[in-house]
Amino acid sequence: MGTEPAHPLERLIFFSDAVFAIAITLLVIEIHVPHLPPEAGDLAHVAALANLIPAFIGFFISFAVIGAFWAGHHRAFSLARHYAPGLLLPNLTMLCAIAFMPFATAYMSGNFGETVPHALYNGLLLVTASLNLRLVRKVTGVPYVGAEASVEEVALTRARPWGVILAAALALIMSFLAPQWSQFALVTIPLWMMMAIRRAKARMAAAA
Amino acid sequence: MGTEPAHPLERLIFFSDAVFAIAITLLVIEIHVPHLPPEAGDLAHVAALANLIPAFIGFFISFAVIGAFWAGHHRAFSLARHYAPGLLLPNLTMLCAIAFMPFATAYMSGNFGETVPHALYNGLLLVTASLNLRLVRKVTGVPYVGAEASVEEVALTRARPWGVILAAALALIMSFLAPQWSQFALVTIPLWMMMAIRRAKARMAAAA
Amino acid sequence: MGTEPAHPLERLIFFSDAVFAIAITLLVIEIHVPHLPPEAGDLAHVAALANLIPAFIGFFISFAVIGAFWAGHHRAFSLARHYAPGLLLPNLTMLCAIAFMPFATAYMSGNFGETVPHALYNGLLLVTASLNLRLVRKVTGVPYVGAEASVEEVALTRARPWGVILAAALALIMSFLAPQWSQFALVTIPLWMMMAIRRAKARMAAAA
Amino acid sequence: MGTEPAHPLERLIFFSDAVFAIAITLLVIEIHVPHLPPEAGDLAHVAALANLIPAFIGFFISFAVIGAFWAGHHRAFSLARHYAPGLLLPNLTMLCAIAFMPFATAYMSGNFGETVPHALYNGLLLVTASLNLRLVRKVTGVPYVGAEASVEEVALTRARPWGVILAAALALIMSFLAPQWSQFALVTIPLWMMMAIRRAKARMAAAA
Repeated sequence: MGTEPAHPLERLIFFSDAVFAIAITLLVIEIHVPHLPPEAGDLAHVAALANLIPAFIGFFISFAVIGAFWAGHHRAFSLARHYAPGLLLPNLTMLCAIAFMPFATAYMSGNFGETVPHALYNGLLLVTASLNLRLVRKVTGVPYVGAEASVEEVALTRARPWGVILAAALALIMSFLAPQWSQFALVTIPLWMMMAIRRAKARMAAAA
Repeated sequence: MGTEPAHPLERLIFFSDAVFAIAITLLVIEIHVPHLPPEAGDLAHVAALANLIPAFIGFFISFAVIGAFWAGHHRAFSLARHYAPGLLLPNLTMLCAIAFMPFATAYMSGNFGETVPHALYNGLLLVTASLNLRLVRKVTGVPYVGAEASVEEVALTRARPWGVILAAALALIMSFLAPQWSQFALVTIPLWMMMAIRRAKARMAAAA
Repeated sequence: MGTEPAHPLERLIFFSDAVFAIAITLLVIEIHVPHLPPEAGDLAHVAALANLIPAFIGFFISFAVIGAFWAGHHRAFSLARHYAPGLLLPNLTMLCAIAFMPFATAYMSGNFGETVPHALYNGLLLVTASLNLRLVRKVTGVPYVGAEASVEEVALTRARPWGVILAAALALIMSFLAPQWSQFALVTIPLWMMMAIRRAKARMAAAA
Repeated sequence: MGTEPAHPLERLIFFSDAVFAIAITLLVIEIHVPHLPPEAGDLAHVAALANLIPAFIGFFISFAVIGAFWAGHHRAFSLARHYAPGLLLPNLTMLCAIAFMPFATAYMSGNFGETVPHALYNGLLLVTASLNLRLVRKVTGVPYVGAEASVEEVALTRARPWGVILAAALALIMSFLAPQWSQFALVTIPLWMMMAIRRAKARMAAAA
């Protein structure tokens, strides 16, 4: 590596990874640890943990969601080879939404089944997913993308973010109809993602 | 390094390192800092610290355990040379269990000697160790492992995770019999690890 | 990469990135999550969120400010190619001010409109921006800067930190006159930055 | 970088950097943010900040101390070129002591002037500094050190850790005599360091 420091793109990736990693790990400190009196007994402990089920659900959903955003960031930036300062703002904006996830998670978990907390969480998810789509499109386009990235790879990488966008939109609508079930709308993420990928493939086949 | 960003495997390792590092460092903020009135005196301070002994024990055990998982991750991934997206999910699942450790630690430390908190901690440890075994096997296999990794290195690296699995299983059983002593079962980690390594060596000798 | 570890400059950059990333992500845990009784109703939730508006404003301002400092650090260090221990102290001092931002943000957000909290925040910002200017000048000078960095690049990189310095000075003055509006002075950051860049260009044109 | 992931030494350095960065940034969240009623007035705010002076002192001392340990780690590992698993345990043990610093800092700051909190802090510092000396000696010795590291560089790098060891020992003694002044003993760190460096130089001159 000699006397040359890291590539500017690498440093941007590195900083993003750190923010993803911290946000995903901070989720757990919003779960309040039960402290029961020593004579409480096993049933009281089981009951205390049962009360935390919404907090555990929130933790696992947000861990999966942030993990999925990280995986998408990883995939999109693996196609990039060039750096320009224009990447900074869309990347920072997307990270800002990620950094806000621990708050939205704790608020939703602590008030499970209420309209406003679920709407805030799912709305934030929709915003994050849209910022993610913008970023993925930018980094897989000129001047960032590497010459060796195939048109197909780029098209599929750009199709994937639609998975979270559509699932979050569905969850946001459900927040107003049946808030306590709205989070389960997120299990449709792989479904929408597969549909978007299939559509991108069909388009490419039509173009060829 | 020219215009080429980091290898995708390196970025996955990097992200994992950050999650390990944050989880291991967050352990300390679950220990409640005693604030005594100015006239409290030295004995009151010593008593306040003595009350925190379970919290200190929990901190050191979890630091050692997360450190051991990190060391195993480090060892296994040092044999890998190739990246494929199939690595993401087993790695994220394992990190999710690691990220949950500060909660389980604080719950166990704050309710030391109770069955449920110790069972939760040791059960989580057993789950984490099993997810770790799955990940280590995956990353030291095709298509991830490098051609220069010897059969022996791979076999020994795959044997090591059994140390925490067996010790955590023992600790989990003890959580129901003598919870206050169950954590001490974890001192048997090196013992089981050595046994697993010896068995792997014996197998290789038999195969040769 | 063979048997050679990272360049010392890279490790310093890495450590700085981690501190920036942690400080920017910790901002959110200072926002207190509302926990309302189940029968509270949507209006009560909206009111609880409305009460947090200063906290949200503080989060976004500080996210933008720390992000801007990180971007400036990124830009300045991308011109550096050489390492010497003299870089450690100005870099650590600047990171110390960054690490203090979550406290100043929470104090300002929690006491929005009061003179002292706004003055502390904006004063800290002025100190951080001045330490940043010192660091940027150092790292874009001998012996750190790379031979391929042009005089123009260096001059523009050194002009940029004046944006936050001047805006923070204005915000600090406003903290004593109209504290509740003082944070809005920070929207002038791009304005001062553009003026400083224009002045640097004019100087270079005059010198040429 | 081709298909080769990072050097194992680099990953160990990276993980250590992350722990240092998190510990140094977590210091601030142990400072309790004052929330005063809106009608409190400026004097009440100044008084609330004045009450936090011990917390601010603790933050700055610990930031400087962890920063100094990081700088020493940086310097020692910049001489290393080879990796062996024997490095893991002394490195993790040292990081464990670093990760414990936010607790000791908050306990000392929150009970400023009391013997036990100052003794705990300074005792932890002495332990950390001793673990650091062991690690620095190990990593600048066979088989870790690079062939190009000069005898003089190694000797000076090994002399430096004595600065914190001797200052922490002095501070620990003072904790029992005049606890409220004991932290100021740490300003002698550069003094002891210079003495240790001078002694190492004298020894080398005598040997030559």
